[in-house]
Amino acid sequence: MERVALIGSGNWGSAIAKIVGRNIIKQPNFHKEVRMWVFEEIVSGQRLSHIINSTHENVKYLPNIKLPENVVAVPELLKSVEGATLLVFVIPHQFVKGVCDQLKDKISINARAISLIKGVDAGGSSGLSLVSDIIRDSLKIDVSVLMGANIASEVAQENFCESTIGYSIKENADVFQKIFNTPYFRINCVQDVAGVELCGALKNVVAIAAGLVDGLKCGENTKAAIIRIGLLEMKKFAKTFYEGIKDETFFESCGIADVITTCFGGRNRRLAEARVLTGKSFEMLEEEMLNGQKLQGSLTSRDIHEILVHRNLVSEFPLFTAVYRICYQGLSPRAILNEI
Amino acid sequence: MERVALIGSGNWGSAIAKIVGRNIIKQPNFHKEVRMWVFEEIVSGQRLSHIINSTHENVKYLPNIKLPENVVAVPELLKSVEGATLLVFVIPHQFVKGVCDQLKDKISINARAISLIKGVDAGGSSGLSLVSDIIRDSLKIDVSVLMGANIASEVAQENFCESTIGYSIKENADVFQKIFNTPYFRINCVQDVAGVELCGALKNVVAIAAGLVDGLKCGENTKAAIIRIGLLEMKKFAKTFYEGIKDETFFESCGIADVITTCFGGRNRRLAEARVLTGKSFEMLEEEMLNGQKLQGSLTSRDIHEILVHRNLVSEFPLFTAVYRICYQGLSPRAILNEI
Repeated sequence: MERVALIGSGNWGSAIAKIVGRNIIKQPNFHKEVRMWVFEEIVSGQRLSHIINSTHENVKYLPNIKLPENVVAVPELLKSVEGATLLVFVIPHQFVKGVCDQLKDKISINARAISLIKGVDAGGSSGLSLVSDIIRDSLKIDVSVLMGANIASEVAQENFCESTIGYSIKENADVFQKIFNTPYFRINCVQDVAGVELCGALKNVVAIAAGLVDGLKCGENTKAAIIRIGLLEMKKFAKTFYEGIKDETFFESCGIADVITTCFGGRNRRLAEARVLTGKSFEMLEEEMLNGQKLQGSLTSRDIHEILVHRNLVSEFPLFTAVYRICYQGLSPRAILNEI
Repeated sequence: MERVALIGSGNWGSAIAKIVGRNIIKQPNFHKEVRMWVFEEIVSGQRLSHIINSTHENVKYLPNIKLPENVVAVPELLKSVEGATLLVFVIPHQFVKGVCDQLKDKISINARAISLIKGVDAGGSSGLSLVSDIIRDSLKIDVSVLMGANIASEVAQENFCESTIGYSIKENADVFQKIFNTPYFRINCVQDVAGVELCGALKNVVAIAAGLVDGLKCGENTKAAIIRIGLLEMKKFAKTFYEGIKDETFFESCGIADVITTCFGGRNRRLAEARVLTGKSFEMLEEEMLNGQKLQGSLTSRDIHEILVHRNLVSEFPLFTAVYRICYQGLSPRAILNEI
């Protein structure tokens, strides 16, 4: 019998809980209860886990969407994974290490994981540390990833979209596909964990470039060129630093489709556009538009730049490098056009 | 000595004339005069060719853009190609056969051609007849193609973009690259004439699907999925019907970049969106929005459908087929989501 634990219950975690909860009811060989770890907080005087379990709605992170009743919010991390054979990681990137430290030696012997978390760190043997690497190294289990053009609120409303599972062990991809795939959330699988995961991180750098040319009002041709060049740098970066990257990964939802949604919507694009239109610095705009949170794409561009410098490859990635220099070295946004 | 003739002087032809005229001045081994065939018409009481030659502006098709003085408008087709070694075809699709019939046995023995014309016909040995096939078969010369995310007015304003030459003979691509490439109009070359040319035709079918989901207000995820699925059907179609199609062609400007511009701008998308929002038929909207001209994407979907039926491959191309059935068989626009 398989048992699913969702580690995380934010906007995306809750949207995924709706899908997984429903899918599991129909599956033989699955425990019908899906435990969802909730980082406990007080909402309108009540514990969030209590609200979710009594109203079947995550009123804070995914309001107005009913969760299936077999999704049970559990505020204790270790209790949430008890007996679980399938661990779905969907927490903010910066909490992964801490959570894994707590889970070490506490999970089922036959557990497998999948990460829905976007983001990379500097570090690791290749110079980058992927979230799947952190989980794998810490828990000593197989880790797949799921990435795609998946704005959470639209998935929760059951608008048609696609997503990509990157796996190394086919059987594990198959079981995760079973719990995620629906007619409106269509999953393809590719044997390329790093390729799929890098797409999810690197697209945010491309989105900053796209936002800059939006602000510069260069028109549709230029924006399409930026997206294309960005996608090619993503592919080249992945192939330079990882083995076994597949070309077809970039044709999947995690590749071209997610780059498109991120370059036309999303906050990386929006903030970069505002950088040009207002003339304010990225720091000021992060303060004003993101409550001081750092922009994911600019953080990623910095991590990437560090690695490229180290490997003497800066000139091979002109778009990534221009984004870094515009974000951190005071280069004019207009330089995005000259540098590429 | 090379000599360039531009066959056509519409919006795109005039934008290209500006680039070619300027580039050629700097090239050794080129006649400095670029003849541009103008289909003569009267504009404000004057002959268009006369206006272009006296004001250096195509006031009808590309107003407010100065053409280089070495671009000379010539209303006689045969005179325009006299002595020309490089023929640039940039006329409306439906005039290609007639023009080639007139040029037969009248061109230089060492002439090579490039086609900038988007569109396909039913017919030919593969079931499709490409514009490059028509020119090649008629004139018995090598034909390359140039396609990309190139909205003419933006190219004329020198906003940065890219374009793709598809070639079969490398030397010919090299010489055409010389006359087209500029810092703001960057050319890549791939040895894949049919792949590049099919991208230019098939993207319009995808744009209709994108316009339909815009009208249905399905959101960003769905639109990105439609674009991705459409691009994959383009690739599969090309590979099914032609030899030597390269995967990388679809990563070029003619592929992913042009699909993006066409699915976010352009009249195929716009009219399909109006189909959903107004409930009017395609015929009525063509009357209202295109002065009765037929929509390119719907014509192409019909030609494609004919071939797919003939080869018993309809079910392998669900997006192309859904577009055809919505355009011609009264299928509801909403079906685009169920059919794929």
